[in-house]
Amino acid sequence: MKLLSFVNNGRPSWGAAVGGGILDLGAFSGGQFPDLKSFIAAGLPQDLLAAAGAPEFGFDDVELAPVIPNPAKIVMAAVNYYDDMTDHSTLPAYPVLFLRLPSSQIAHGAPLIEPRSSQKLDFEGELAVIIGREGRHIPSEKAMSHVAGYSIYNDGSVRDWQKHSHQFTPGKNFTGTGSFGPWMVEAGDLPIPQVGVSLVTRVNGVEKQRTDTSRMIFDIPYLISYISTFAPLEAGDVIVTGTCTGFGATRRPPEFLTPGDVVDVEIEGIGVLSNAVQAEA
Amino acid sequence: MKLLSFVNNGRPSWGAAVGGGILDLGAFSGGQFPDLKSFIAAGLPQDLLAAAGAPEFGFDDVELAPVIPNPAKIVMAAVNYYDDMTDHSTLPAYPVLFLRLPSSQIAHGAPLIEPRSSQKLDFEGELAVIIGREGRHIPSEKAMSHVAGYSIYNDGSVRDWQKHSHQFTPGKNFTGTGSFGPWMVEAGDLPIPQVGVSLVTRVNGVEKQRTDTSRMIFDIPYLISYISTFAPLEAGDVIVTGTCTGFGATRRPPEFLTPGDVVDVEIEGIGVLSNAVQAEA
Repeated sequence: MKLLSFVNNGRPSWGAAVGGGILDLGAFSGGQFPDLKSFIAAGLPQDLLAAAGAPEFGFDDVELAPVIPNPAKIVMAAVNYYDDMTDHSTLPAYPVLFLRLPSSQIAHGAPLIEPRSSQKLDFEGELAVIIGREGRHIPSEKAMSHVAGYSIYNDGSVRDWQKHSHQFTPGKNFTGTGSFGPWMVEAGDLPIPQVGVSLVTRVNGVEKQRTDTSRMIFDIPYLISYISTFAPLEAGDVIVTGTCTGFGATRRPPEFLTPGDVVDVEIEGIGVLSNAVQAEA
Repeated sequence: MKLLSFVNNGRPSWGAAVGGGILDLGAFSGGQFPDLKSFIAAGLPQDLLAAAGAPEFGFDDVELAPVIPNPAKIVMAAVNYYDDMTDHSTLPAYPVLFLRLPSSQIAHGAPLIEPRSSQKLDFEGELAVIIGREGRHIPSEKAMSHVAGYSIYNDGSVRDWQKHSHQFTPGKNFTGTGSFGPWMVEAGDLPIPQVGVSLVTRVNGVEKQRTDTSRMIFDIPYLISYISTFAPLEAGDVIVTGTCTGFGATRRPPEFLTPGDVVDVEIEGIGVLSNAVQAEA
């Protein structure tokens, strides 16, 4: 099942993508589950899905929201994929993690904002893991039982601000740069992490990044275990698992996004997350 | 006026510290202001304070909470004070910023937790700024009009986890390490930033850090302006303005906290934030 968040005539809700349309499960649940996070926290009860009728909305009738608009935390991994050039003798001992603020998130289809203060907006296509069940000190062998589903993330990065100091915070938290969607796929519907799925990023239709989720350096169970050592995980938390080589700053010459560019991130079995770049008003 | 958050018999509320006791303004407002953040967002209406009667609670009757238990963001500055050894030719061009999760926060008087996974828990005494009014792209000359008040923060840091990679995230987000209290003082009641106030940290009564808020490298108006360039600020957001030299990791030999140690951070005109270290259960 594909689950998503949306806004219809100013009313925030959530639902399921079914047969080309959207089931409004927020309304159908009669307020029992006001947002997707609360439905995840309840364990994704399938009887609600089974009881709902035909889709009320087409995708053109609503405005999509970030899959989880209001996560308690968004933990991001930096570059986290082996490639053919990886020197295995110099791999990092621990994942490189930073935090993203929910205020930086945008939905599938929303404009990706090039800030006034920079001309170095870059893309990073990534797999997002959505936590389903709270936990602290989660051993890696039990980590997958804490995963509710998967989605796609474009970790839009403002490279000059990212390098203002050794901490990435400013460049990773500009408003309108963290694209998250279009939906989440329930964990049981994807073979991750036993089998890898392909992850491809295109700019204006030209492939820029390609990898496979089996090539992660720090895999999903490790990330969940490591993060839960310092912070409690809770339903709706988002772990964005890092990117591979090929983003704009790694290219020679570097390629940054400009208004009108369209970034598509495609993950096999999930779909395509697409955003067009727009200059900040 | 000193404003604080607390829990009374399992009920979260907030109020004012008056005459050695606590006025329960959450209850007195009849649900109009369910938490301190909502009262700040309303502009700290003084008529509510004037109408309230005598304190209902002594400090021993309630459990204090972090001043703002649920900020939308906590932006932390790293070391941010000139000292006598500062080489002005090598000052950073921009502030070093990282994010702290609300889940890491504790109240004045609560145990400061030494995690099972580390013996390198350290202290950093800091001035916290609480934002009163939303804004984006705030010019520094208008920044002080966005400040609701000030409080005290102990940015408890797990030094080995902070150095697992070049990003500070894990070491700055352990549960039970971000102490915030005991209350906030309204901005108009302190001479900041025109006049500096003293900031002193003691461990078991021995002075370890001493500075004056006039010695900040990146001052409060600059921090507000810089942060609001990338992210919108909103009422209840917390900016923790960085520490000075003298914390444990800077000492020779290094001095880390162990269970039973008591850390006091005192800021002139605000009060004393005190926490005793306890090993994680």
